[in-house]
Amino acid sequence: MNNTENILTKIKENKEVIGVVGLGYVGLPLAVNFAETGIKVIGFDKNPDKVDKINHGTNYIEDIRDAVLREVVESIALSATTDFTRLKECDALLICVPTPLDVFKKPDMSYVESACTEIGKYMKAGTFISLESTTYPTTTEEFMLPIIERESGLKHGDDFWLAYSPERVDPGNKSFHTRNTPKVLGALTGDGLQIGQAIYEKAIDSIHPVSSPRIAEMVKILENTYRLVNISLINELALLAGKMDINIWEVIDAAKTKPFGFQAFYPGPGIGGHCIPLDPFYLEHIAKKFNFELSMIHAAGHINMRMPHYMYIKISTALNRQKKAVNGSKIFFLGVAYKPNINDERESPALEIMDTVAHKGGIVMYNDPHIPHVKTNEGFTYSSIGLNEKNLANADCVVLTTNHNSYNVDFIQQHAKLIVDMRNMIEEGNDKVYKL
Amino acid sequence: MNNTENILTKIKENKEVIGVVGLGYVGLPLAVNFAETGIKVIGFDKNPDKVDKINHGTNYIEDIRDAVLREVVESIALSATTDFTRLKECDALLICVPTPLDVFKKPDMSYVESACTEIGKYMKAGTFISLESTTYPTTTEEFMLPIIERESGLKHGDDFWLAYSPERVDPGNKSFHTRNTPKVLGALTGDGLQIGQAIYEKAIDSIHPVSSPRIAEMVKILENTYRLVNISLINELALLAGKMDINIWEVIDAAKTKPFGFQAFYPGPGIGGHCIPLDPFYLEHIAKKFNFELSMIHAAGHINMRMPHYMYIKISTALNRQKKAVNGSKIFFLGVAYKPNINDERESPALEIMDTVAHKGGIVMYNDPHIPHVKTNEGFTYSSIGLNEKNLANADCVVLTTNHNSYNVDFIQQHAKLIVDMRNMIEEGNDKVYKL
Repeated sequence: MNNTENILTKIKENKEVIGVVGLGYVGLPLAVNFAETGIKVIGFDKNPDKVDKINHGTNYIEDIRDAVLREVVESIALSATTDFTRLKECDALLICVPTPLDVFKKPDMSYVESACTEIGKYMKAGTFISLESTTYPTTTEEFMLPIIERESGLKHGDDFWLAYSPERVDPGNKSFHTRNTPKVLGALTGDGLQIGQAIYEKAIDSIHPVSSPRIAEMVKILENTYRLVNISLINELALLAGKMDINIWEVIDAAKTKPFGFQAFYPGPGIGGHCIPLDPFYLEHIAKKFNFELSMIHAAGHINMRMPHYMYIKISTALNRQKKAVNGSKIFFLGVAYKPNINDERESPALEIMDTVAHKGGIVMYNDPHIPHVKTNEGFTYSSIGLNEKNLANADCVVLTTNHNSYNVDFIQQHAKLIVDMRNMIEEGNDKVYKL
Repeated sequence: MNNTENILTKIKENKEVIGVVGLGYVGLPLAVNFAETGIKVIGFDKNPDKVDKINHGTNYIEDIRDAVLREVVESIALSATTDFTRLKECDALLICVPTPLDVFKKPDMSYVESACTEIGKYMKAGTFISLESTTYPTTTEEFMLPIIERESGLKHGDDFWLAYSPERVDPGNKSFHTRNTPKVLGALTGDGLQIGQAIYEKAIDSIHPVSSPRIAEMVKILENTYRLVNISLINELALLAGKMDINIWEVIDAAKTKPFGFQAFYPGPGIGGHCIPLDPFYLEHIAKKFNFELSMIHAAGHINMRMPHYMYIKISTALNRQKKAVNGSKIFFLGVAYKPNINDERESPALEIMDTVAHKGGIVMYNDPHIPHVKTNEGFTYSSIGLNEKNLANADCVVLTTNHNSYNVDFIQQHAKLIVDMRNMIEEGNDKVYKL
């Protein structure tokens, strides 16, 4: 029996072992989904704290139900480890490590590189490997493949199979989660694609195979670039609308009544999270190699990078009408998460606005029911204070930066002296409210 | 009884007379929709040929069924005239005139101006006036209102009411037409809004009122700017994908499997028609007055304007691989309509590509079952030739510029020597086909 027949038989008999490398907001839900089907899953992470939590059935991802995690850990379907030599126990390895940007907005491929090196060192022959992290097209074939072949001494196609299958996790989405979100899969060979489908089908309802990893890589970038560009467009139009005395929120509501050819996006203080602000830069990076300038992404990035600054101006203008300066004023931010109802403040524009306000002498406070402490980009640390009458009334300006469902808008309006609303949480017609 | 009560009573009793000014692809369907409900409609147009056709029940708009037009004309519900003094017979005037760009891509408001002047001269007191043409925000209030008040000597609010309600006609759309496409309506006063709703409700299933004409003006611009920007984005990504050996069509197909946060747009030889290429320039125009640069629209325009040139390069590259030059080659274009299954070649990128090919010494031929003759931007005229074996085989290169449903792709592939496919009409794998 060759390697392909061997692994397909194992999969058919539910005897394959799945390794998930990286146990963050993508890897852990994926590991749990496989474990729920009764397949043995080993989670790998360099962070001993995460590993320890999982092995004790302690959940740290809001999208996973605590009871489900406990159940799969207790049934020994899922275990976690920091010991990468155990990669050799796995038949399939799904890589879910971060692909951030460095400070110069260039792809930081060190996590992928490190994962490939460890896999190359320790995997056994006959392993299926799939990358889920967002990255630039050609990564799987031209970046990962050489590392794994070099470190393992094994030959792709005969000894292992490499694929790319982008995660589509949308934190906080109540309708679509790992299992019911269709998954795109591209492999380097037909065998690889067949094996990959057989594996993923167990945890994901619908697999959409494509002809190559680079197609799948481009799919993910297209999805997120689409979002970046449209958020930027509506932010730019919102700024113009502000000058023209046009309520952009009413415009969007009306445009949404068009039953074809329109999808609504909303303005905000900037883009945040681990995808939209980052992914298009991955495409810009590889485009340079092909002597290609991506003018839409460039323009979009330009607008979004400036949004937090415009938001600072908004706060300053609102205070100015009350004859106050930012310098010495108490500014109370509501929400530092980059989107509502989640506990993730990565790349959140609120943090940048807080830094700017602090720079200009403002006294910064914040509340976020999901995030008790934050550290800003400039290294300042803050702790969430209570959203109560006293703290609201005490602030010279209350800034609505994240539209968490738990925020009681009436209560906030009742007690705040001045409000800057960046999320359209308050209806028009309140004199003390300034809207984006 | 004051003017407001008077017109509302007429509307209630179905005794109002509707005047539609401009009988093109927006005005004529709208006129027919009102006439179908039994209301008396007078169509106004300066073109005696159109007026004559309508009065003889001869249809010239593909989206209207011939029998329906005949019926409303025969029942005398609808009649047309070139005599603008008859504007005084109307209780409501709906303006559906063109708002094109001049050669410098600046708004050409002469049609709106002329319509307002005629209306001001001839209308009676107590008339409701609504503009449907796409235009920049503030047009209704700051451009139309002064002209009508000056020409009529009447006072807005007491003697007449002005509103803006953008057309959303999508030629060739089989699901959504005038009646079942929700309509946005913004008026200058509460009375105007009430009267406008009462009138439009008879011909349109759903009216979405907004707080002002400028909101409604911005709605239409947002809808079309959204399309422009997204078409531009996918065109730019298609050009990069071409360099990276990535099939962008396969990428889009896979991205479409994402069940949230994505809407598919497709690349093509450029943008065409009377909306997408024009409307965003209307916004750019007014933005300048507010010292505001619209960088997304600017970047989008830049890409789309260059697309026909890239398409010329594609044709030249395809011929080159067969050791042929454009100069002296016979290039056969299939489709000059700007989108499939319609008879409209306004702003069609095919015409620009034909001009470029002709400039470089190529011998240009075309077929379009919907358009028997065309005049290009440079003033060359062509007539459609048959889509037959001889004409296909005779061409050095066949260019698929419009994906009309009637085109038989197998037949074309069978007889053409070389094909450049700009519309993804042919599957991958045919050596003589070059795709965008």
